[in-house]
Amino acid sequence: MSTTEKLLTCIEHFKSIPEHSIVELDNFRERGGLVVGVYCIYAPSELIRATGAVPVGLCGKRHDPIQAAENDLPSSLCPLIKSSYGYAITDKCPFFSLSDVLAAESTCDGKKKMYELMGRLKPLHVMQLPHTQKGEAVHRYWVDSLHDLEAFLVTHGAQPIKSKELQRQIKLHNQMRTKLASVMHLAADERSPLRGSDLLAVQESKGFVVDIEGYLDQLDNLEQELRAYLAQPNLKPQSGPRLMLTGVPVGKGSEKVIRIAEELGARVVCMENCTGVKGLELLADEEATPYEALAERYLRIPCSCMSPNSGRKKSLGELGKEFGVHGVIDLTWLGCHTYNTEAYSVQKWVEEALGVPSLHLETDYSDSDVEQLRTRIEAYLELIDL
Amino acid sequence: MSTTEKLLTCIEHFKSIPEHSIVELDNFRERGGLVVGVYCIYAPSELIRATGAVPVGLCGKRHDPIQAAENDLPSSLCPLIKSSYGYAITDKCPFFSLSDVLAAESTCDGKKKMYELMGRLKPLHVMQLPHTQKGEAVHRYWVDSLHDLEAFLVTHGAQPIKSKELQRQIKLHNQMRTKLASVMHLAADERSPLRGSDLLAVQESKGFVVDIEGYLDQLDNLEQELRAYLAQPNLKPQSGPRLMLTGVPVGKGSEKVIRIAEELGARVVCMENCTGVKGLELLADEEATPYEALAERYLRIPCSCMSPNSGRKKSLGELGKEFGVHGVIDLTWLGCHTYNTEAYSVQKWVEEALGVPSLHLETDYSDSDVEQLRTRIEAYLELIDL
Repeated sequence: MSTTEKLLTCIEHFKSIPEHSIVELDNFRERGGLVVGVYCIYAPSELIRATGAVPVGLCGKRHDPIQAAENDLPSSLCPLIKSSYGYAITDKCPFFSLSDVLAAESTCDGKKKMYELMGRLKPLHVMQLPHTQKGEAVHRYWVDSLHDLEAFLVTHGAQPIKSKELQRQIKLHNQMRTKLASVMHLAADERSPLRGSDLLAVQESKGFVVDIEGYLDQLDNLEQELRAYLAQPNLKPQSGPRLMLTGVPVGKGSEKVIRIAEELGARVVCMENCTGVKGLELLADEEATPYEALAERYLRIPCSCMSPNSGRKKSLGELGKEFGVHGVIDLTWLGCHTYNTEAYSVQKWVEEALGVPSLHLETDYSDSDVEQLRTRIEAYLELIDL
Repeated sequence: MSTTEKLLTCIEHFKSIPEHSIVELDNFRERGGLVVGVYCIYAPSELIRATGAVPVGLCGKRHDPIQAAENDLPSSLCPLIKSSYGYAITDKCPFFSLSDVLAAESTCDGKKKMYELMGRLKPLHVMQLPHTQKGEAVHRYWVDSLHDLEAFLVTHGAQPIKSKELQRQIKLHNQMRTKLASVMHLAADERSPLRGSDLLAVQESKGFVVDIEGYLDQLDNLEQELRAYLAQPNLKPQSGPRLMLTGVPVGKGSEKVIRIAEELGARVVCMENCTGVKGLELLADEEATPYEALAERYLRIPCSCMSPNSGRKKSLGELGKEFGVHGVIDLTWLGCHTYNTEAYSVQKWVEEALGVPSLHLETDYSDSDVEQLRTRIEAYLELIDL
């Protein structure tokens, strides 16, 4: 195989991780393992794994189940919430079916209230996330909430956490995030052949990991293939403006903005969102008491559900520079009040920190506005001075 | 004056309380007093008064300032948030102008993020309200948040709280709520001539009180006038179905649903919302440590921002029976995800607890859908079996 073929084969492997995961989760459950469905990067994967359970990402990214969800939920909720709930009630998501329990979180109004209805389907625990990040009371409250999650999991058959195992998981997750960040930087190289859909697949794969050590090997492999590819002489730089996508989470099935931007000749090289690289550079302190370190790490996530969310300004500035972006698209799912309201500040932050133009888009998972989006993105790309 | 004239004069007085309040607040400030603008019934009035400051209600109820707000805020936020912010930036609300500082709260996503922008205009403190009501950690977190509010007020010139004064304020507020509840029950008597707009004026008046002891006397007076009116022989019962309004807060300027229902022959006798009787029956424990008692009392408020919000089911059932209602209108402001999502459960709760039909309406402060609302409410009223 050529270097290019090897790299693309490796990417194909990452695209197939969710599918393979179904079999692995099934086997894990047959061996008595507890599968914990999670909806958000606030779900502390280290903690869940330290109880011997396995977390699996359930956050809804496709349009299909939304109609069913709207029987119970207001249509004005964001598509992510409706899709997540729709998958649950129609039982069309294999990962929801495979989840023994659900670890939810109070990130936003819509999710919080949706979980009340979802809790009728499976045992569901809502982690009590504070509205803000700073202060001793806030930290303690979140530490308590992490302990409550452990207690919930133990009630459902998981093992009480041993400090050493939690420490080991913290190290493994730090390695995973560092490795993923490294891969994302290589993938964004101006000579890299990877597209937004490839980055999405790699980023999303981390939500479907049963064997985390095996996954680290796969990331190593991908990193090596990327390095080998980029070591080739005389590779031409990819043309087109380099874009950062910020705002709401995006996944396979809800990537229309990335697709359109790339069809129009841009490259989405960095996704500053919770399905992307946001949070990958936030590592838990391996020397601190594990519970404290975890709480501290997760509370630093610069999500718009936090007020104030000054970490996002920092994150946009740093990632924008690291990835050398020429523009920023700020995406809001219709109905997401926190990202939508924050868009007002993001425009200023991007201008101040990066001096590049930004475009705020509000849309949903449907294809009804694809041509409208294309027109707006096209006009926006013309503004970018390369 | 006849008994009827005396009662109506008394109601007119309550309608003029906000206007008189402007002069009183002005005088209070001239004497060096601190005026604290508040947006929500989670703002602990007892605590604010115990620092020597005076709270004043700022929650936006009119459509006028919304357009200005939409320059900075997404149009998809609820009208209450946009109206509140619009009043602030256009400086058209005398009470906002008179407020030295603002005591805000993290009740919902839209407010929480709007306050980030509003905080540029005046010193603003966000009370950290938890997402749920039960448990020691939740209680402690809210107690801490109340202490933080005191610290904020003291920084801005208020007096540190003396336990005795807080206890005295708790008693006064318990009296005020008990008295208001009593007035509301009398006003809802089947022979009472008062309409929804009268109830609104009395309920809203509590947000504009400078001298709470004087206000208690005014409530006493109103109660006496109501009793005198109802003591008249041969009064005829008012006709038409007796309705409970539940859901979002309503005030002068955003009362179109009440007006339409009454124009169609119904009587809105009970408002189970935070501008109405909800919370009036929740008293703080006068024997407990005052801070603990306050925290406990405020956390019990059955707001849809709480998850779960089982207190609302109880509240709907109890008030529905006490007020002898024939139907329930559940009102959601467009964009309010928590009340909108809870509407699904409310319909069942009303059916189970009261066995009367309910109608869920989603609207905003504009008059654009008045005829549509009239048609829906008319059809709904025909369902009610008297």
